[in-house]
Amino acid sequence: MNLPANQDDLRWPKSVTVCEVGPRDGLQNEKHMFTVEQKVELIDLMVEAGAKIIEIGSFVHPKLVPQMAETDEVAKRIRRKEGVEYRALVLNLKGIERAVAAGIKKVKLSVSASRAHSKANSNRTPEEVVRSFVECANYAAKNGVELSGAISTAFGCTIEGHVPLNRVLSLINCFREIGVRELSLSDTTGMANPRQVYEYCLLVREWFPDVTWNLHLHNTRGMGLANVMAGMLAGIDRYDASVAGLGGCPFAPGASGNIATEDVIHMCQEMGIETGFDLAKVLIVARKVQEIVGKADSFLIRSYNGLQFFHSPCASL
Amino acid sequence: MNLPANQDDLRWPKSVTVCEVGPRDGLQNEKHMFTVEQKVELIDLMVEAGAKIIEIGSFVHPKLVPQMAETDEVAKRIRRKEGVEYRALVLNLKGIERAVAAGIKKVKLSVSASRAHSKANSNRTPEEVVRSFVECANYAAKNGVELSGAISTAFGCTIEGHVPLNRVLSLINCFREIGVRELSLSDTTGMANPRQVYEYCLLVREWFPDVTWNLHLHNTRGMGLANVMAGMLAGIDRYDASVAGLGGCPFAPGASGNIATEDVIHMCQEMGIETGFDLAKVLIVARKVQEIVGKADSFLIRSYNGLQFFHSPCASL
Repeated sequence: MNLPANQDDLRWPKSVTVCEVGPRDGLQNEKHMFTVEQKVELIDLMVEAGAKIIEIGSFVHPKLVPQMAETDEVAKRIRRKEGVEYRALVLNLKGIERAVAAGIKKVKLSVSASRAHSKANSNRTPEEVVRSFVECANYAAKNGVELSGAISTAFGCTIEGHVPLNRVLSLINCFREIGVRELSLSDTTGMANPRQVYEYCLLVREWFPDVTWNLHLHNTRGMGLANVMAGMLAGIDRYDASVAGLGGCPFAPGASGNIATEDVIHMCQEMGIETGFDLAKVLIVARKVQEIVGKADSFLIRSYNGLQFFHSPCASL
Repeated sequence: MNLPANQDDLRWPKSVTVCEVGPRDGLQNEKHMFTVEQKVELIDLMVEAGAKIIEIGSFVHPKLVPQMAETDEVAKRIRRKEGVEYRALVLNLKGIERAVAAGIKKVKLSVSASRAHSKANSNRTPEEVVRSFVECANYAAKNGVELSGAISTAFGCTIEGHVPLNRVLSLINCFREIGVRELSLSDTTGMANPRQVYEYCLLVREWFPDVTWNLHLHNTRGMGLANVMAGMLAGIDRYDASVAGLGGCPFAPGASGNIATEDVIHMCQEMGIETGFDLAKVLIVARKVQEIVGKADSFLIRSYNGLQFFHSPCASL
């Protein structure tokens, strides 16, 4: 015998939005430096493959993240497809100014829930980062730039360990106070587990119903897709992912980082959940990435040798 | 805004049983031939690490699976810990005879739901395999051997593609007719998706409440742990796994095979679900495996460099 099952009415979303972050979170963690041409091609091809939201890079100090030094140039050269959101990560006012100059109308502000990670990542405490948001929000409002927010290490930190939920909640409120209504909970270190993801997501959706929620998940401990599933069951329908699993893990060389776009799309496709992506086109991009960096951290690429993709519909579909 | 969530009463099991299949499903798919000593050590150490059910090998023709040629010798030399089930895979009567001679009291009979896979794997149709079960059951009953069953390619086949559910259901009935009440649904090719796993498991549990169900999952397309999660939500509390992800995928060189024991145990541990394993001891074994075969297909091993394991309790724990 086994255990009592849950009710047979688990609600799966009809569709999810996968936000392509390979050109930013992926590339910023890769040793290999992509050329501007390669970055532009990556972005344009992923949009052609179906990406409706794509992070083209970040506007940060080139000494901090040399891989992102040429984002201004990338922004100039990418094709701008109608209906696609091209966004960039910024850490401060200077970043938003560069975004405006580059014609980028959507930026993402990021803060770490973990103090230690915040200091290591931006040399500021979370409070200092948050205080700088006010001038960012004012500037953005004056210049027609839309803001979204991200809370990294929301589920745990490799330096501090457990990150108290109330710290995440107060950062959510900080964002809301400056008018941000689109937020991402980021599992920067891949420490989130499905139960935690499910419960946190239910909670934030109930407490902050005016926010559009996104999950940014890493696969460092293998729970990436399980966490996507947990998020879906909690009603989250937006997920960051990185083509070919670009990025790796800055904390543990050789370990996984971002969940791979193709793996997420494939799982959704098999589950009858629409993503708007053409998986075959995504795989072409993933293989190009593999040629450039010499590896691809995605299950689909590793299995691609001659495997057929068979749709296995569930009894109810 | 996001979507309606499921009710906030997802029921997670308090504990699961992880059945260690590395010495069988793992080793049979590894090119590297483990010595008898290495196999015995692997088995004994995994039992010390907490395995309560362990597949020590298979009794099959050595020409078919040379890696399993010495299972009789392995069975003689392993320590037999009280309360631990030592089982072996068999394909026919000859296999059970060898099991009895080797003092193994529990065997697993396996049949493929996919005709093409059955022919490729055992050179027989599923019907021929099933007909041979009767004499196996009679012999087992006379010799005090307990039977369990496994239905491979239950969720899909890389050769045939979609495997109709009714084929799986009739094989379940074949097993039940010969008195087998412990069954494993095996995702041999890693094609199962969480929605399918959830729905199939709910269905078989409802239609066959007299069976103890087990899931055997492969991670070829990255959905292994997500499928474990789906199984848990459907009330399944027994899962096969292979230490260090031993085994790979026979269909796609370089691709993943069995879900890794340490990855499953880690996820359960983080979710507050008991497994009875000592994760630190499992990792020691996984690293020994890594030294022998030159690789370990598990997320925890890849991330192990200096990562701390922090428990991140959910709000409700």
